[in-house]
Amino acid sequence: MPRLAFYYEFASPYSYLTAARIEQLAKDRGIEVDWRPILLGPIFRRQGFESSPFVANQKKGAYMWRDVARIAANLGLPWKKPRIFPQHSLLASRIAFAGRKEPWIGAFTRAVFHMAFALDEDISKPELMIALLRELDLDADKIMRQAETTEVKIGLRAAVAEAEALGVFGAPSMITEKGELYWGNDRLDEALDASFVRIG
Amino acid sequence: MPRLAFYYEFASPYSYLTAARIEQLAKDRGIEVDWRPILLGPIFRRQGFESSPFVANQKKGAYMWRDVARIAANLGLPWKKPRIFPQHSLLASRIAFAGRKEPWIGAFTRAVFHMAFALDEDISKPELMIALLRELDLDADKIMRQAETTEVKIGLRAAVAEAEALGVFGAPSMITEKGELYWGNDRLDEALDASFVRIG
Repeated sequence: MPRLAFYYEFASPYSYLTAARIEQLAKDRGIEVDWRPILLGPIFRRQGFESSPFVANQKKGAYMWRDVARIAANLGLPWKKPRIFPQHSLLASRIAFAGRKEPWIGAFTRAVFHMAFALDEDISKPELMIALLRELDLDADKIMRQAETTEVKIGLRAAVAEAEALGVFGAPSMITEKGELYWGNDRLDEALDASFVRIG
Repeated sequence: MPRLAFYYEFASPYSYLTAARIEQLAKDRGIEVDWRPILLGPIFRRQGFESSPFVANQKKGAYMWRDVARIAANLGLPWKKPRIFPQHSLLASRIAFAGRKEPWIGAFTRAVFHMAFALDEDISKPELMIALLRELDLDADKIMRQAETTEVKIGLRAAVAEAEALGVFGAPSMITEKGELYWGNDRLDEALDASFVRIG
């Protein structure tokens, strides 16, 4: 089964738009999603930004909120503009990294994004993460402990560096098995098409 | 007839992809294009960039060239990666600004973009601009003199400032009569839909 690597950041509004849809769309075409939670903070810092470009550039930020709201409405996705942006996504990202190859990763990823961008909840709170994991019938205590291991902390940092080495500079990004990079929610269909056509 | 304001920069690859298509697509829907040549240089400088973000951010730049080539191929548009980026677009922009309300503005705009991104010609050369104008059966000498008047020079600067005041931070951008801003070649269809639906 062809795989599509999906790089996402829980603080990224456009990542939400893609994460909400990618698993079903991929499944419809016989493609497996390879979930790759990353952190944009270190990537942006290496680009010379102290925060998101949507914060550094006010006009671009204002446009982004309008654009995301329009797209969410078109897609029928719930949307609530967050009061705080960007959110602190480190804990959620570590949990996702720890579970990136587990069967629950898609559902967990969607649940976190839903909390962040449909309900405007603070995803940095451990109690919220525990509640989400329990709702998925998982051993929340065990997974929370895993998420704070040195292996996961270092592994996530290495995954960010690896993504950058493959050309990733923002999120969402998708990389096909052939190495073609697609950036942005706008490129989800193209990335799936490129994954499908080559193998099918 | 509803109008859609189209903000473009002759040095912008994504502006090329939109400029090549917008007039026909708009015409098909009974929409008139309001041509608005702008300069991204002063806009980027006010954002803290000394050049295009595609130059400042190497990874983003590398991705952009791949992305534009893929889109051009999908659209069946000729494409040649320019040896020099960004090109000096001031002269071409002044000519376009001088002729922005003339019946030849669409054809001239497409011709300049074609020179820049299909043939990789240097669009800063006055002799190339003169040749393009003559090919359109226009009084090239008169238009070249107009393009260098203080009125046009100041008018173009004011048009850039006005675009920024309306929220424009990059190109291509489109603004509907209702004031909705759409950024990027990816939003051409949405911008046309928004122009059409509201009036039709």
